[in-house]
Amino acid sequence: MKRTAVDLNCDMGESFGRYTLGLDEEVIKLISSANVGCGFHGGDPHVMRNTVALAKEHGVAVGAHPGLPDLLGFGRREMNVTPEEMKDYCIYQIGALKAFVEVAGMKLQHVKMHGALDAMARRDEELTRVMCEATREISPDLVWLAHSGIRTGEIARNMGLRVIQEVYADRAYNADKSLVSRKIPGSVLKDPPEIGARIRQLIETGTVNTIDGKTLELEFDSICVHGDTSGALEMIRTIRGILADHNVAVKPMRELI
Amino acid sequence: MKRTAVDLNCDMGESFGRYTLGLDEEVIKLISSANVGCGFHGGDPHVMRNTVALAKEHGVAVGAHPGLPDLLGFGRREMNVTPEEMKDYCIYQIGALKAFVEVAGMKLQHVKMHGALDAMARRDEELTRVMCEATREISPDLVWLAHSGIRTGEIARNMGLRVIQEVYADRAYNADKSLVSRKIPGSVLKDPPEIGARIRQLIETGTVNTIDGKTLELEFDSICVHGDTSGALEMIRTIRGILADHNVAVKPMRELI
Amino acid sequence: MKRTAVDLNCDMGESFGRYTLGLDEEVIKLISSANVGCGFHGGDPHVMRNTVALAKEHGVAVGAHPGLPDLLGFGRREMNVTPEEMKDYCIYQIGALKAFVEVAGMKLQHVKMHGALDAMARRDEELTRVMCEATREISPDLVWLAHSGIRTGEIARNMGLRVIQEVYADRAYNADKSLVSRKIPGSVLKDPPEIGARIRQLIETGTVNTIDGKTLELEFDSICVHGDTSGALEMIRTIRGILADHNVAVKPMRELI
Amino acid sequence: MKRTAVDLNCDMGESFGRYTLGLDEEVIKLISSANVGCGFHGGDPHVMRNTVALAKEHGVAVGAHPGLPDLLGFGRREMNVTPEEMKDYCIYQIGALKAFVEVAGMKLQHVKMHGALDAMARRDEELTRVMCEATREISPDLVWLAHSGIRTGEIARNMGLRVIQEVYADRAYNADKSLVSRKIPGSVLKDPPEIGARIRQLIETGTVNTIDGKTLELEFDSICVHGDTSGALEMIRTIRGILADHNVAVKPMRELI
Repeated sequence: MKRTAVDLNCDMGESFGRYTLGLDEEVIKLISSANVGCGFHGGDPHVMRNTVALAKEHGVAVGAHPGLPDLLGFGRREMNVTPEEMKDYCIYQIGALKAFVEVAGMKLQHVKMHGALDAMARRDEELTRVMCEATREISPDLVWLAHSGIRTGEIARNMGLRVIQEVYADRAYNADKSLVSRKIPGSVLKDPPEIGARIRQLIETGTVNTIDGKTLELEFDSICVHGDTSGALEMIRTIRGILADHNVAVKPMRELI
Repeated sequence: MKRTAVDLNCDMGESFGRYTLGLDEEVIKLISSANVGCGFHGGDPHVMRNTVALAKEHGVAVGAHPGLPDLLGFGRREMNVTPEEMKDYCIYQIGALKAFVEVAGMKLQHVKMHGALDAMARRDEELTRVMCEATREISPDLVWLAHSGIRTGEIARNMGLRVIQEVYADRAYNADKSLVSRKIPGSVLKDPPEIGARIRQLIETGTVNTIDGKTLELEFDSICVHGDTSGALEMIRTIRGILADHNVAVKPMRELI
Repeated sequence: MKRTAVDLNCDMGESFGRYTLGLDEEVIKLISSANVGCGFHGGDPHVMRNTVALAKEHGVAVGAHPGLPDLLGFGRREMNVTPEEMKDYCIYQIGALKAFVEVAGMKLQHVKMHGALDAMARRDEELTRVMCEATREISPDLVWLAHSGIRTGEIARNMGLRVIQEVYADRAYNADKSLVSRKIPGSVLKDPPEIGARIRQLIETGTVNTIDGKTLELEFDSICVHGDTSGALEMIRTIRGILADHNVAVKPMRELI
Repeated sequence: MKRTAVDLNCDMGESFGRYTLGLDEEVIKLISSANVGCGFHGGDPHVMRNTVALAKEHGVAVGAHPGLPDLLGFGRREMNVTPEEMKDYCIYQIGALKAFVEVAGMKLQHVKMHGALDAMARRDEELTRVMCEATREISPDLVWLAHSGIRTGEIARNMGLRVIQEVYADRAYNADKSLVSRKIPGSVLKDPPEIGARIRQLIETGTVNTIDGKTLELEFDSICVHGDTSGALEMIRTIRGILADHNVAVKPMRELI
């Protein structure tokens, strides 16, 4: 069946106090789902409220983007936390953001793990399970946003969560559907025509080419984009142009389940 | 009309990581409402979950006890925050605790400000108003726990919140119904017979004697107790004995409205 | 006697983890003394080391810029800390930065209080005194950098510290030599010709015009500049041009005592 | 040659704000070297000053006890930090404590890594090396306190640091001289006569019995003790009694090199 819509998701609300990160006020106009920092790896109560207000103003759905309690490392350094601690960190952060979303008269849409939490979940099924438990216990309506074809999505689905799979517009893929490590040359696509070609191929055939030249089928209903530089914004505009050319609408992921 | 029930509230869940504070596992058996730390001045996600579980096990109602973002000062040092920041801090903390309470299958009962937040609210009506807004916007069912006879309770009531007034079992009172500053000798009652006499007088006549020897009428439906030392636990047991002697039941504040 | 040299000081090293603040790599080329964040209001160990290395590379002297333990508020919100706490915060931060400076083979030059610490010192002599004690006890050779004509400098001098007075290139002055509050329109000078005129007047006559049109004599050996925007950098270049026109060299403050 | 003196070292100064940990005021009377928390995993500027004052009062030498920036996990959870970050964390913490020590008119004696830092150093030679570099660059006079017979001590020695080796009074040993993991039954000795026997054997023969019944030679000049419970204090008194019986004096480690 021909695809008629897709979600565009982007990390947002990761500023902290006097420190600003990301072009949130611009990127919000171009996406359909915002992954909002919850105050552990980035974001603070004030930033959270402003980001939710921004999302509401632009009709963008809001998801929680929990991270490790490591502001200094921006939640990107793995920490040896127990499954129980992990679950508690997720409940705390999702709960805090949910309050801002509901106070704004909206409904929290999804949950997406940040940085090292995501990496740890992929390595450790028990950690994935407690993250999913935290999500489901807060609300079984929450969508679990997972990398396409990765075991974490399967675990979430088996636990009764609704799952949306995402692909990355600008990251190289390994043959096992994992992202190529940022340490390896060529892991991040920076060339607009190359990214445009990838998006076209994804929309037209549902496949990507891996870093070693294979072709990989990837199920997805969301495309993850970035919004930290003006070049990144340009990229999202390019992606939206390609989607429009293919009559693919941009819609929040909850409308795609 | 003769009083038939009263609430006993106590601060709890203020441990942090490896640091333990308060005899929570003992005090929980003696009270009806727990004011639970939300991770800013004290408490952490793990402690919050455990404290909520403890409350559930013992049939104790749970309230949020938000504080300033100052763990080092235990939320006791006033900070020059704006009303907007204050509101956001309250939403964040109440939201985080509410998630733990709901995941445990309970309902968040009340909100009580901690330490310097309480002092700042008494000084500054605008701060009180944003705290009440945060509470009401999260849920209009939440009870606002306020010092008896103090303006903050009146503001909360005017804003549509249900208000429960509390008296302190072990703190000396000024003639204007405020608590005598801890810096002044005699501000904290430590003598069990003296505290017993106060509770008896409160139950029988609805009055306390002020530090300068006047008699003060105080409306209340909750008594605030402390649980950090074994002496404090003994005090609560004494209070419960006096209440039993007067056929006054101990019930969570939401049953007293 | 005609002035032959002046110091240019600027706040630096206030980035934190993934969060970047200020154009440090550019501004370092234009100043003679850097006030380096010490990890409380901004800065972190990694940033501190890099900033010290940058200063060394460009022959810029390093001072400690201690702040309140309030990263979320960037040390700009007054907190009700005791003099003892204040002293301990200063020793901790100055000590930490001093280690980086000495490991780099340099000598810590000065101490300048950040944000709310500066404001609190101006209001409260006891706080000023403990800050000076902390500085002197760490090393009597440290220079105390103070606003020109303000009591804090006098206190520091009376306590035996060497004091350098600074003027602000871009802030309006009250008749009592204090800076006009940022809340008042006109408090920050943004017009390059206006700032140029001020610097000329300061160099030629040692005076500034106050916000209400009076003329004020100000002793100074350092000019405080800012480096957060490209406009700010342009301003420093303009100031350096004026200094060069007047044959005034730019030298670290320790060479001016 | 018969041993005539030994050092007793103990972790101290790990309280934080309102949170108290350890019986520091008692344990200080019984030891010769204090490993003082530096504010990352535990300790704060106020606690650091008080702990240094306590050490001075009782003639106890002070060492820095740096930890990971994880107060919530008390520095016991490994984090994926880079060698460069690690070095900077060490310089920051050692520098901060050194300032308190010098302000008190003392000289910082040694450095001992805390919790997960210690475990990470044992696993990763590069991390050990940067910790040693940080120590040496702050002062080549600082003593590196290492587990007896472990590679980290050898690395430190090769890098030019003076090394003191320590044994644990109350931890079981593996045949490779490492401590038995706390997760394994029998890893912690709790029986006073058993600990007494171990100390006697160590003093008389320089050996310990491993958990699997072998006899292990261990070079050492310091014994690590704990001071968190009254039982722990009793244990130190017992150890001191045995040392006195053998005419072994208790002296700070710097007097034993």
